[in-house]
Amino acid sequence: MNAPHPAPRLRPSEATVAALTAELHRRYGNRAVTSLAVREQHGHTLTWVANQPPDIVVYPHSTAEVAEIVKLCAEHEVPVVPYGTGTSLEGHVNAPYGGVSVDTSQMKRVVAVHAEDLDCTVEPGVTRKELNEHLRDRGLFFPIDPGADASIGGMAATRASGTNAVRYGTMKDNVLALTVVLPNGDVIRTARRAKKSSAGYDLTRLFVGSEGTLGIVTEITLKLHGIPEAISAGVCPFPSIRAACEAVIATIQSGIPVARIELLDELQVRACNRYSKLTLDEAPTLFLEFHGSEGGVKEQAERFGEIAAEYGGGPFDWATKAEDRNRLWQARHDVYWAVFTLRPGVKATATDVCVPISRLADCVEETKRDADASGLIAPIVGHVGDGNFHVSPLIDMDDPDEIARVEAFIARLVERALAMEGTCTGEHGVGQNKMKYLEAEHGPGALDLMRTLKRAIDPHNIMNPGKIVAL
Amino acid sequence: MNAPHPAPRLRPSEATVAALTAELHRRYGNRAVTSLAVREQHGHTLTWVANQPPDIVVYPHSTAEVAEIVKLCAEHEVPVVPYGTGTSLEGHVNAPYGGVSVDTSQMKRVVAVHAEDLDCTVEPGVTRKELNEHLRDRGLFFPIDPGADASIGGMAATRASGTNAVRYGTMKDNVLALTVVLPNGDVIRTARRAKKSSAGYDLTRLFVGSEGTLGIVTEITLKLHGIPEAISAGVCPFPSIRAACEAVIATIQSGIPVARIELLDELQVRACNRYSKLTLDEAPTLFLEFHGSEGGVKEQAERFGEIAAEYGGGPFDWATKAEDRNRLWQARHDVYWAVFTLRPGVKATATDVCVPISRLADCVEETKRDADASGLIAPIVGHVGDGNFHVSPLIDMDDPDEIARVEAFIARLVERALAMEGTCTGEHGVGQNKMKYLEAEHGPGALDLMRTLKRAIDPHNIMNPGKIVAL
Repeated sequence: MNAPHPAPRLRPSEATVAALTAELHRRYGNRAVTSLAVREQHGHTLTWVANQPPDIVVYPHSTAEVAEIVKLCAEHEVPVVPYGTGTSLEGHVNAPYGGVSVDTSQMKRVVAVHAEDLDCTVEPGVTRKELNEHLRDRGLFFPIDPGADASIGGMAATRASGTNAVRYGTMKDNVLALTVVLPNGDVIRTARRAKKSSAGYDLTRLFVGSEGTLGIVTEITLKLHGIPEAISAGVCPFPSIRAACEAVIATIQSGIPVARIELLDELQVRACNRYSKLTLDEAPTLFLEFHGSEGGVKEQAERFGEIAAEYGGGPFDWATKAEDRNRLWQARHDVYWAVFTLRPGVKATATDVCVPISRLADCVEETKRDADASGLIAPIVGHVGDGNFHVSPLIDMDDPDEIARVEAFIARLVERALAMEGTCTGEHGVGQNKMKYLEAEHGPGALDLMRTLKRAIDPHNIMNPGKIVAL
Repeated sequence: MNAPHPAPRLRPSEATVAALTAELHRRYGNRAVTSLAVREQHGHTLTWVANQPPDIVVYPHSTAEVAEIVKLCAEHEVPVVPYGTGTSLEGHVNAPYGGVSVDTSQMKRVVAVHAEDLDCTVEPGVTRKELNEHLRDRGLFFPIDPGADASIGGMAATRASGTNAVRYGTMKDNVLALTVVLPNGDVIRTARRAKKSSAGYDLTRLFVGSEGTLGIVTEITLKLHGIPEAISAGVCPFPSIRAACEAVIATIQSGIPVARIELLDELQVRACNRYSKLTLDEAPTLFLEFHGSEGGVKEQAERFGEIAAEYGGGPFDWATKAEDRNRLWQARHDVYWAVFTLRPGVKATATDVCVPISRLADCVEETKRDADASGLIAPIVGHVGDGNFHVSPLIDMDDPDEIARVEAFIARLVERALAMEGTCTGEHGVGQNKMKYLEAEHGPGALDLMRTLKRAIDPHNIMNPGKIVAL
């Protein structure tokens, strides 16, 4: 854990940091904060990753202010760490070399909503729930929903995903354009508002998922979707993980445009029952949602019920009442908190991998056997329509032996996913924790190319150094 | 037209070319061709762009051979121009500085089809129709359909799109991973077979749409889709372009998951009637297709019919018979050839722009008025669900005045699209012809960033020089 990453450059001197800090105080007054509490809050807090606080936290109000801050940092060659809501899970917002945390939480304007074009432009501090509240009266919604109420800027930066991705895609598919402050302080717009373009390199996708290592996102233009005329949701237990996975494959192959299809293993169901006061059978269970017309969602649910029965699943209970659905999906989004009911007082290590869906049952089953053999409590929940699943081993941070077992378990999990043509992370991102797997995943040539991009765009390595590709 | 692009480097000396040509002959025998006819066939032939043939054409059979050819070219600093089927429209395959055309048409293996995962891996010379024939027995299809029977490699390189994009996305959305030979001859794989990943920079999207300027694609892993249980298609005339566009906006906003929705102006309908022996009313017309269950497509068609009627459109004739549908879509795909019936013996200048859908009616109407005022015959056909449309001014290449009028007309078309927050090309790409618009579209900072990427990846500027960003 937290093995030292190769130092890309020396941490700036204390004198440099003091000079920059004074300048930021002068320009931003009480929007430039150096108290330890605030700085630590901007290091990594949500997971087991050790906290590495920045030297100062600044709260800009505009793209121009972000550009000014980045220019100052570039002049002083001081690291810049973009910060949204701090809900990432792999050490993205830590400041291993100190520097300036640029907290975008006060950039909360919804700049424009174009209902006819099904798009909107927002500042990075708007959270996904805030955006959806803003949109509701227009009959529109934004589907990407990581567990936390993350900021749109952070979601773009980490290529976030969630339960709706099987139908609506990830941030990669739903960002139309970005305004980005580059490491030299220049401001660019990556694309226009047209729904598609072939006009040159795809700068939008270059920044989506770059985790703040190439620039800071200060405006995001997003695709929106009409709120479906009808929604139904349901829960379906299965005799085994494999049966559930096979039902998922059959469902997707049959062309049912399922909006959400989530797998919870029996351990995770138990945790949800306890935390969210549900009364589900403690069996491998699929949570589903269908979007469409009244007739359409009925047809989809019925066809899924038939497929589930073929694989021994059921009964498939489905409901169209909004309050039942909301309780179900709130429980799904609260799995991170629910797991602690299985072993109070410990930390969780939420991580994820993604494999081709044909290998999902193998990967989940082997992972469960591995957790048992390792003496770990590690509930599993997955966006199974995408082959993506999360494992959250619970961990007593005072037990070095257990920490070592969890580390080894996660390394084997990644190795297993890679051996199945999968990826070390489907949606959580690389941050600090998964850098060590990138060469095995991409090969030395592709990793070199990533380093080439980083060096070309950020030659002084000031943008979120020590993440993704440490130079 | 064909104003000289800034020379990125000198054309290699005749001695260098001779040495390299001899070496390629030695290694590839009759798969290395220097006849003028073959070389000219590999310059630009499909459009009005002047032909700039390469010095030699080579037909590799494997990634290893492509890598060997590129390494040779890198050693000699000779340009490499990737070639698929040569159906691009903006000068992509021209060789303004000579060099080696790498024709991938003999790399035609379907490497793997993973039906359960809805993906496949193919070599770049497989065309979209060949792929769909290969897939049909498995109940799968690949939806991206530019007008021509283009190669999958070329489609990836140009971020191709087509009539299904409104539902299934473009190449950007349907390429899972690429094998790429970099300008130094190294071979990388951009991603794995997992449906999504957050493991570092999006190298896949970096190469999709890079038009061979950053490397040569030698294997493509694509997302596939199940052939829908039911398909219905139809034709609906409207009293005006604006009425048709408004019906499209209402259709998409209402959440009807239309698979295809194409606009033909009255001029294009006349051309299609003549070329494809149809008997449509010569009015602005939508061609539509719906995919889903039997009940679903019926419901979609009925709901569209109601919307069309609200905007004065109709009658909406729709059919589920495959032969009627095929005749309709073949006519749609043949529009490029159909336009010549309006003025035999001339050339066409097929170009495209894309705007936010709310501005589509304005953009199309103004463009039609401009064509009339300019004395040009310029039929319009559009993927209107995306706000993307094509204009094909017919042009007598022996009439300098007409050439000048077409050039000015296209410049105004692009200016108009940009003023409406659109792009200078939705799917045809930049090639040589649209380089001059990139700064207006992206701004100097973003264009500089594209140049930075090009320089970092291809420091000797050997990969398809003189395209997208001329250094």
